[in-house]
Amino acid sequence: MIVRKLKTIRASENNVKSDGWESARLLLAGDGMGFSFHLTKLYAGSELRMHYKHHLEAVMVLKGTGTIEDLGTGETHELRPGVLYALNENDEHIVRPETDILTACVFNPPVTGGEVHDKDGAYPAPAAEPEPPP
Amino acid sequence: MIVRKLKTIRASENNVKSDGWESARLLLAGDGMGFSFHLTKLYAGSELRMHYKHHLEAVMVLKGTGTIEDLGTGETHELRPGVLYALNENDEHIVRPETDILTACVFNPPVTGGEVHDKDGAYPAPAAEPEPPP
Repeated sequence: MIVRKLKTIRASENNVKSDGWESARLLLAGDGMGFSFHLTKLYAGSELRMHYKHHLEAVMVLKGTGTIEDLGTGETHELRPGVLYALNENDEHIVRPETDILTACVFNPPVTGGEVHDKDGAYPAPAAEPEPPP
Repeated sequence: MIVRKLKTIRASENNVKSDGWESARLLLAGDGMGFSFHLTKLYAGSELRMHYKHHLEAVMVLKGTGTIEDLGTGETHELRPGVLYALNENDEHIVRPETDILTACVFNPPVTGGEVHDKDGAYPAPAAEPEPPP
């Protein structure tokens, strides 16, 4: 059994920060769960364009409000506590936090470590070496 | 992109209740994510002995306090907001909520639907038909 504390992860190299977001990666590929689990903050006023070409992701909003735009369909959905979105088709999307947003995120395949988004808003494919945390 | 609301799931057959717990299953096997995602309440005063023989599970405590006893090692860990546990070795365990506890749970392989625990505290293997919700 693995037991981890958010406070410990936040103070470790598994707390990854980049432009407009910060992610505490509580479970990673090396834990052997077949998914990774992150608590991620998205900061108010940022515009986060993302396209996970190599990962499926589910995101549960725990705190805060904003919107997500699905660039495949053009639809915009409201984000607030109790809303979950799942990028089941590697959907390219833009999240616009109106307030700071706290989310629980799950990635399959699991993120290996300190990945940040590349210029296309993707994480590298699992076989690649992770980029160092910023 | 899948977008779901907790309120809608709570009013649907994907909100499964049993002795001492209640689980809103926001993502299931049929969603094709490779994991299922649940928001689960564990009720104060219950004693939940569980042994997922066919699933790995990660649990993040969002609200409430209690303990988890790892029956493999005999260790007991405190549960409070910000603590995550992962049953990476199909660990048999007992959760004892002191208050009502709200958790985010991820299962791999994904739960298919209305599973409840059998007499051994397990969910059936993924190939089996799910039991009906209670």
